[in-house]
Amino acid sequence: MKKSFQDVSKHTTENIYDIIAVGFDPKKTKILVDTKDIKRIYPIALEIAKRITFSTVKAVFGFQNSTNIGMIGFPPIQAAPCFLPSVIEGKPTPVLIPAAIDQDPYWRVTRDIAEKMGYPKPAQIHSKFLPGLGMQGKMSSSIPETAIFTTDTEEAIDKKISSAFTGGQPTVDMQRKLGANFSICSVFWYLRYFFDTEKESDERARKCRAGELLCGECKCNLKDATKPFIADFKKKREKAKDQVDQFLFDKS
Amino acid sequence: MKKSFQDVSKHTTENIYDIIAVGFDPKKTKILVDTKDIKRIYPIALEIAKRITFSTVKAVFGFQNSTNIGMIGFPPIQAAPCFLPSVIEGKPTPVLIPAAIDQDPYWRVTRDIAEKMGYPKPAQIHSKFLPGLGMQGKMSSSIPETAIFTTDTEEAIDKKISSAFTGGQPTVDMQRKLGANFSICSVFWYLRYFFDTEKESDERARKCRAGELLCGECKCNLKDATKPFIADFKKKREKAKDQVDQFLFDKS
Repeated sequence: MKKSFQDVSKHTTENIYDIIAVGFDPKKTKILVDTKDIKRIYPIALEIAKRITFSTVKAVFGFQNSTNIGMIGFPPIQAAPCFLPSVIEGKPTPVLIPAAIDQDPYWRVTRDIAEKMGYPKPAQIHSKFLPGLGMQGKMSSSIPETAIFTTDTEEAIDKKISSAFTGGQPTVDMQRKLGANFSICSVFWYLRYFFDTEKESDERARKCRAGELLCGECKCNLKDATKPFIADFKKKREKAKDQVDQFLFDKS
Repeated sequence: MKKSFQDVSKHTTENIYDIIAVGFDPKKTKILVDTKDIKRIYPIALEIAKRITFSTVKAVFGFQNSTNIGMIGFPPIQAAPCFLPSVIEGKPTPVLIPAAIDQDPYWRVTRDIAEKMGYPKPAQIHSKFLPGLGMQGKMSSSIPETAIFTTDTEEAIDKKISSAFTGGQPTVDMQRKLGANFSICSVFWYLRYFFDTEKESDERARKCRAGELLCGECKCNLKDATKPFIADFKKKREKAKDQVDQFLFDKS
């Protein structure tokens, strides 16, 4: 009966390793885990929840009668950390939330009620989505081929990049003749976001469009760059396992 | 901004004193406070919440689009302690819930999902409602005249019982002639539940109906019985303040 609790806990732990391995400074970083730190979150969430009606979340998140009440009750849990710094400091304390655009509705609802509760409105900064490796759409943890995981083996990385969606033509001849479309190419964007300088990337785009580059070459470039990156990240990730306590909001 | 948190906490503390003063055995009693013990409750509540739709709580509790999502998200918090003993014991552990009839819908919803979650269905035992001192209806903490509180002064007790709703006639003459209606009389039921023996109560009912008793006499009986009862309870309540730790589910 506890299966799903263990799953939650495993994902949470793995995410924490990743966050630490990215290089956040433990002096400036506190990781809040909903289930672990719920005692700090819940009283604030209750105050938020009573100020939001079902009509509002229905309109904002598209909830319906068939939606489970776990989903309906979740937005205040997501919103509570916006006000936690004010509660901790004992005075109105503004927050800035870096998140992807799909989280935007939460902060909009939160902004609507913040001042009624005596807190400053939370501010947000939108991060860009890294595209998935598949044809369009975002990465999905339930479709492993759409993303390179920080724990992937070299073989898995080779295989995923080999099968990645590109903007290439059906045949080499056509590509040489017509050029390819870098703007829809996942390999191009992975290289641009992670490894190419802006100048290198612009040059890659030019060559791609001119038919001077074949998709296989870009894929080789991405493999050669990704494999040492992930190998290094894995080392940092191993080290992170001993650092978790330094990052937790509540160490008990 | 913390006003309402303090209110919750004050009511909770006062309720705990009352529970202890009633005479529960600390060896067999654990008091769970939602906000304080939420870390134990929340993971179970999440598992419950995802198995209940808005349609269900709408039908059971009469929720509407204008209902706030705090109310919509509450039933799983109420239900979670039904399964907590199973989680603590690590094996299916049945529970029996003593509660008044107004709590019945929670346990019905909980019974519907218990077996899907691998837990035994909770069982319930219905307690009787003590009627309010007003004309019909139940006691309400927001209408102090409808109830005698365990912290009331003797003057307040006198005043509340003097104004209590009875089944009496408009005049003494009419009451002597027509008799009164004990079945709707709050004073009769307080005496029957708390102080009269069954035999005494039956005799009181007979005399009331026959016009041999005036409401003032019953009110005097109730005052005389209530004042020492509350005085004694107040002493137990004072002692209870030092015993809270023994009763708390989680002492930290």
